[in-house]
Parts: sequence; structure tokens; C-alpha cells
Amino acid sequence: MKVEGRWRRSIEIDERGDVLVLDQVRLPYAIEWLALRDLDDATRAIRDMHVRGAPLIGATAAAGVALALRGGIALDRACEQLAATRPTAVNLAWALAAVKTRLATVGVTADAALAVAREVCEADVVRNEAIGTHGLALLEPRDRPLQILTHCNAGWLATVDWGTALAPIYKAHDAGISVHVWVEETRPRNQGLLTAWELAQHGVPHTVIVDNAGGHLMQRGDVDLCIVGTDRTTANGDVCNKIGTYLKALAAHDCNIPFYVAAPSPSIDWTIDDGAAIPIEERSGDEVRHVANALVMPASTRVANPAFDVTPHRLVTRLITERGVVAASHAALAAMFPEHAA
Amino acid sequence: MKVEGRWRRSIEIDERGDVLVLDQVRLPYAIEWLALRDLDDATRAIRDMHVRGAPLIGATAAAGVALALRGGIALDRACEQLAATRPTAVNLAWALAAVKTRLATVGVTADAALAVAREVCEADVVRNEAIGTHGLALLEPRDRPLQILTHCNAGWLATVDWGTALAPIYKAHDAGISVHVWVEETRPRNQGLLTAWELAQHGVPHTVIVDNAGGHLMQRGDVDLCIVGTDRTTANGDVCNKIGTYLKALAAHDCNIPFYVAAPSPSIDWTIDDGAAIPIEERSGDEVRHVANALVMPASTRVANPAFDVTPHRLVTRLITERGVVAASHAALAAMFPEHAA
Repeated sequence: MKVEGRWRRSIEIDERGDVLVLDQVRLPYAIEWLALRDLDDATRAIRDMHVRGAPLIGATAAAGVALALRGGIALDRACEQLAATRPTAVNLAWALAAVKTRLATVGVTADAALAVAREVCEADVVRNEAIGTHGLALLEPRDRPLQILTHCNAGWLATVDWGTALAPIYKAHDAGISVHVWVEETRPRNQGLLTAWELAQHGVPHTVIVDNAGGHLMQRGDVDLCIVGTDRTTANGDVCNKIGTYLKALAAHDCNIPFYVAAPSPSIDWTIDDGAAIPIEERSGDEVRHVANALVMPASTRVANPAFDVTPHRLVTRLITERGVVAASHAALAAMFPEHAA
Repeated sequence: MKVEGRWRRSIEIDERGDVLVLDQVRLPYAIEWLALRDLDDATRAIRDMHVRGAPLIGATAAAGVALALRGGIALDRACEQLAATRPTAVNLAWALAAVKTRLATVGVTADAALAVAREVCEADVVRNEAIGTHGLALLEPRDRPLQILTHCNAGWLATVDWGTALAPIYKAHDAGISVHVWVEETRPRNQGLLTAWELAQHGVPHTVIVDNAGGHLMQRGDVDLCIVGTDRTTANGDVCNKIGTYLKALAAHDCNIPFYVAAPSPSIDWTIDDGAAIPIEERSGDEVRHVANALVMPASTRVANPAFDVTPHRLVTRLITERGVVAASHAALAAMFPEHAA
């Protein structure tokens, strides 16, 4: 997508194998690119959320392996260190496994790892664009702007390009379909501001709301459909996504509004058949205290900060994968991805 | 309740008829008292949320009438100006009607209005303490702290004293029942920080969470029950409360957790039988931009900021009124308050 008038990706690997990422801790306050030069840089970028979003975490991890091998660090140690950064998104483990599998065939060299990292990035773009095309078919034009609600950021910033949940929205906008996006702030880290920034860059009309307001908008008929991303989808279609997603799925169900989840296949954890088994990252309470002003909380006030929740598949209208739109059920997913259904 | 070691109320009328309120725009950053000297002071205090919470808005409006009459302003003009401050809480209209009715009997004088304002305040305290006693019966002690989730602030700061939703919690704590309160931040105005401040002053264990996290805590079994307040309850038991309440009621229903609403009778609007008819205050988008930093939102980003939502009575386990615990239904409410059921 375009940044300051140029076509860019959220992660770029140049001809020398240097890795550049758009710093999402600084966005939208400033547009700054961060150079990742070694394994520790890549580890820090994921852990401290300079890059975030399940697909981009996977791509950055793949690039991190290449940087590690270039620095003479063993493959296993590199994978171990990268895997320990964040627990919930399964794309991280998927990308590391994909790199390892390929290197086992072509040989463990820095050059080979770099080539694989580039492939991981390219494949992400292709998958997301396919999600955009399949999702577009769900967006029926109205005689007024189609009202879409999204939570967190599952746009191109959360991936290498296109995004997952936002890909169909970009496709619709580009096709001349009038859309308007309700952008949830997404406390505590305000990723909604990333979504607003993306949509503004692309010219898509949008309105920011606090997370509390999404249900009310659905009740009063101001939302036609919801689309969100996923950090881990179980084999039966349960969706683990940014904290607060479950609440919006409940409201959509209560208000008879379709609730779609854009789920590229690397987000599917075929080993788990129940969302309750997914490890939920508990992040620092400072993320909550920060905006609310740390100084004002009494010493006896504790803070809890779970980063994800699980939306049961019964609340998911359809999953949008790179192969097509599918019911959130074990049978439907197995039929669409038979190679994993064993 | 105690503030800096002394027993205080959120609104105090001294022997000369001067009105002092705890400034809730400054809390919890600073403990400052605001003197209201005339009708405009009272109007501004309600409109700009120096006082907030449905019962306290009602009490402040009653005091505002007394200040107006002392300043030679006509009763009708005073009531009109005060009624126009905020649209959703029905306690405001209730308090003004109560004052008018009494003055019609005893005569429209500044002294009489002051006496009525004092009565309105005293009656609020008595009602809230009764809600505390009735609600206490719903809090069954466990062999571990009873886990209670609340949204916004319906504590003593939202009333003259005791609070509505927090009254049963204070009663339980004082009775030696071990409780722990999950305090929702409540964006955009962070009234959860007021709740944390109150609970800390009173020694009640509590943990602040973002509004997105409440559903996840219920899913994983960390919440035994929810208690919230109400700004307007319809005759059939629909509850209009701070934006985001509906989402927590949905989650409680989905997780089989009791969802109680502390509803003093002045919050009940006997003229409305459907929550959809309640006017929802739309507040300035700056309240959303403020914490998220106004400067970073692109010029094309709009902001919407509805301040309340409606929880349908089917999601309310029980209402806790000053007369007792009652089902959220037209029949049950009419049986408990027959004088209004005509």
C-alpha cells in the first residue's frame, strides 16, 4: 500500500538481505522505518510490537532466521529465541516450521534462509489478496455506504501487504463500492488508530469509536456486517483474536448481523480443536496504566491485561480463507484443506 | 464515605445554603471541592461532568433550583435550564419534578427550595443504603473472594453517598465477606478510575481492566456476578446505562453469570416501555481523541461518541431497588411500585 505517496510493504528485504520494517510503535505519530540487522533486532521488533499482527509476526520471524544465520547463529537457537517472543499467534510457529522444513531440503545456509523469507513474504501477499477477492463477494452494494465494523488492526500493517480483514474493504473501495468503516479504538494499545491511518491513506471513509460503542451501533442498525482478523483459528473454527472480539461477536449474533473472520490458512492451528486450549498472552499492566496515567492509580489498584480472547465458532458466520469462504466448522475446514485434515 | 480520613458526601449543602461538590473532572488526579454559588454554576457542574452519575445529577439539580431562587431567578426558568444539561439520566427530570411538586405545596421560596434539596439528598442516601442491604443478600460468600465485575462508576461518587452498584459491595466488605472487584476502565472518560479510587479509599481489593477484557474474564470463570448502575430504567425493565454495558450483559448471559442492575426508583421512567425510546446522549468526539491524542488522527477521520446504550430486560437477571430485588419485567416492577403502575 502507499506510504507518503510510494508503494511500500510493512516489511521489506533488500538485495543485500537487510530488513526494513515500518515501526508500528511510532505509528501513527510518526512514519519511521526500523532496520533489523541481526537476530536480536528481529526478536525485539516482535516482542516489543514494533511489528504486530499475526501474519507480519510470521514474516518477520522468517526474516529473523535469515539474519541469525547471516550472523553465524545456529538455526535451532534462532527458532527457539524467535518462538519465545509471543505465545498466541500461531503464524509465528507456522513460519518457523515452514523455514525449517525448506532448509532441511535445500541446505541450512544464510542465502537459502533469505530466499525462504522472501517466499514467506510473497506468499502472504498472494494469500491476502485472495482473501480480499473472496471477501469482496460478501460485500453487497447498497443504495448508501455499506457499514462495516472492525476491531483492532487486521490491515496491511498487520501483514506484509493488503491485510486480512481490510483486504475485502480495499477491494470494494477500489471497485467503486461505497463503504464506511467503524473503527474500534482497541484499548489498551489503540491499534484502531493504525486502522484509521491506513484507511485515511487509502481514502476509505471511516469513523473511530471507543470499544464500548460497537454493540450500541449494531443495536441501532448502523452496522451491516463485521470483519475481523484472527491470531489463531482452531480446527473447529474457534477464533482467537484481539481482546474484545468476543464481545462484538456476541452483539452481532444478538442483532442478526454477519460476523466474518478473515483467516489465512497459516492462522489455523490444526492440532487444537477447542479455543479454550489456546494460550492467552498476559501483557504488562503498564499498557493499561499508560494512557489512563500511571500516577493516578492508588498503590492498592492492580491491573490485568489479557491480550486476546476466544470467539466460539457458533458466533462466526463464515471464515474467509485464501481458498474461499467457509463455515466455521471442523467438517467445512477439513473439506477445504484436506491436506491438513488427517 | 471517607475522603482524606473524613466522612464526606459527594455533594454537601452547608447551613448558609452554599453547595460544595467533589470535582469529578479533577478526580482521581486531585481531590478538589467546587463551590456552586448560583444557577449557572450548578448548570455547568452537571453539563461539564464536574458531577456525574444519575442520582448525583438529580441531587445537584435540586440544589441548583435552590441556588436559582436565592438569586432571584424564576422556578420555571431554573428548571428549564437545568433540564437541558444532559438528556439521558431520568433522575434529572425526576428531581426537578419532585422539587416543583413540593414547592407548589409549601410555597416557592429560596428557603423552602433549600429544604427540599436537602431532603432529596437525604432520601438518596437512604435509598442507596437500602439497595446495599438488599443487594448484599445476593452476594453469597465463597471459600475464596467473591469475584464481581462492574462497569463505569455507580459508587458513592455517582450518588450522594453509598452508591448504587457499589453499595452491596461496601456492605459485603463491611460485613467481612471477602470480595474482589473487576473494574472496567470505561472509555472514553475512564470513570473506572473513579471506581478504583473509591474502592482503594475503602480498602476493597480490586483490579482495573480495559473494557475489552470483561468478556474474556467471564469466559474463563473469573467472574461470579456483575453489578452495574442505570441512568434510566423503563417500565418493562430495559436498562439504559453507560456505553458498553450491553456488551457485558451479553457476555454474562452467554456465560451463565448473573447480571444485576442497581436501580433506585427515581431512575425508573414509568412513561416508557421500551428502551429504544430513550434519547442517547451523543458527546463530543474530543473525549475520544483526547486520550488517543487528537493530533495523530488524520483530517479525514471522524469520531462518534454515544455515551449510553440499552440493555434489554431479557439480559437483566434482577433489578436491585430500594424496596427489594425484583425481576426486570413490567409485571414485577408494577407489583413492587403499585403507585406508579397506573
